[in-house]
Amino acid sequence: MRIADRIVEIRSAVQRARGNGSTVGLVPTMGALHAGHASLIERAAAVDDFVVVSVFVNPTQFGPAEDFDAYPRRLQEDASIAAEHGAHLVFAPTVEEMYPPGASTFVEVEGLTANLCGAVRPGHFRGVTTVVGKLFNIVAPDRAYFGEKDYQQMLVISKMVRDMHMPVEVVACPTVRETDGLAMSSRNAYLTAEQRAAAPAIRRGLLAGERVVKQGGSASEAVQTAIAQIATEPILKVQYVEAVDPETLTRPDHNGAPMLLAAAVFAGDTRLIDNIVVEG
Amino acid sequence: MRIADRIVEIRSAVQRARGNGSTVGLVPTMGALHAGHASLIERAAAVDDFVVVSVFVNPTQFGPAEDFDAYPRRLQEDASIAAEHGAHLVFAPTVEEMYPPGASTFVEVEGLTANLCGAVRPGHFRGVTTVVGKLFNIVAPDRAYFGEKDYQQMLVISKMVRDMHMPVEVVACPTVRETDGLAMSSRNAYLTAEQRAAAPAIRRGLLAGERVVKQGGSASEAVQTAIAQIATEPILKVQYVEAVDPETLTRPDHNGAPMLLAAAVFAGDTRLIDNIVVEG
Repeated sequence: MRIADRIVEIRSAVQRARGNGSTVGLVPTMGALHAGHASLIERAAAVDDFVVVSVFVNPTQFGPAEDFDAYPRRLQEDASIAAEHGAHLVFAPTVEEMYPPGASTFVEVEGLTANLCGAVRPGHFRGVTTVVGKLFNIVAPDRAYFGEKDYQQMLVISKMVRDMHMPVEVVACPTVRETDGLAMSSRNAYLTAEQRAAAPAIRRGLLAGERVVKQGGSASEAVQTAIAQIATEPILKVQYVEAVDPETLTRPDHNGAPMLLAAAVFAGDTRLIDNIVVEG
Repeated sequence: MRIADRIVEIRSAVQRARGNGSTVGLVPTMGALHAGHASLIERAAAVDDFVVVSVFVNPTQFGPAEDFDAYPRRLQEDASIAAEHGAHLVFAPTVEEMYPPGASTFVEVEGLTANLCGAVRPGHFRGVTTVVGKLFNIVAPDRAYFGEKDYQQMLVISKMVRDMHMPVEVVACPTVRETDGLAMSSRNAYLTAEQRAAAPAIRRGLLAGERVVKQGGSASEAVQTAIAQIATEPILKVQYVEAVDPETLTRPDHNGAPMLLAAAVFAGDTRLIDNIVVEG
């Protein structure tokens, strides 16, 4: 598996692929690839002829007190996983390659970024949309693949693409879970055995909330139910559980579906997120 | 001359041109084309095989008290001028085409937009970079042509392109002037006969400031000299005259060149800008 760390390399590899009539798929990641990423890469390889996996721990989407330095980095292993699941090229640039000295340009989606993770991680989505905008300009993919585990991120990027007329199709892919329901995340590796054992309560909480919504319950009933379920594991600390409209991410003006239930929960210093969309 | 108002039309026309091996040049304008625009189009036609002129009065770059509604619109005449100087296609979208309902994504260049026009027109450059980002995504040009009359705009767009790794080359083209030195501008059409007669004092002021800089004078000496010259026409009201570093647009830490002298001056309600770069 070839690992390119320069923008010029990627551009010429993509140009070569396009010259052969290939379509191009991009799977943007921060590395520490797991089965969730693998499913994105497989989906991309099933649809597009040439698949680029980017591995870049993006500093601008981390807050000052967050885990940028600690975030797991294991590029060789990531490249093997990418190859195994059908990728053709790994793009692993340095921070300086992505952010030239003095870089001061940002892409921001207003509105959709005000709630949920946007409310508790100021600047996070600005960092995400900025780096994804750069990746789109560098790789010029036909399609880009994002996981629904990061539901708000997927929605924000879709809106950026639509608003900015970016010539890319955003493909949303289902969350991949451990057998006990915990959503796959690179951050699961941080968990102690005790935290790991408690963590599936997040999923159980959201499922309990989903039952409330399906019975026509209100947003706040669903939230209270989910929080109560998560609280059965006292080692977990809820940052937020919210029930919002799945398109606008604002408080719904109705009971029952459609509803997005989204949670952010701390297990020690490790922040885990998950969500369920209850279709209308 | 074909006028396209839909993004899909432009994309397919550009794709067709590319299929024939053509390079693509874009001249973004707000219409009301004059000899300055004509020189950009001619430059584009000399370099690129397929030249798109966009005509779009962009609402997001106007402040609430500015002249968005009054800005001259004369599309048929613009299309004739574009054709005459070598353009192949005019793109004249509606506001709704460029800004889909609920659009809330913005591109912002920090730093370079803090001074000069950025200081007196809050949000102006955010509107400019947002719409130019959209145009680049729609047209996907090899090169885009901008006039040096809007020096700060040219610099801000160049920085956006560099920071965001946009696959476009920004080509800066010299300011075109009336025989009495007044920089060509669509807004010159607003001037009364008396204002028009006074307006060349802006250029004379900047030239006087340039002489000071060339003799090793300080930024503030150059500014005072320019202001004094402009003040010989009492009908003109200086909004700012500044002498700054031509790359950072901040106050220079040296006397003499290199220096950018930039002015914004009101003649009645009409705001005129001009500048001179004194090379080091």
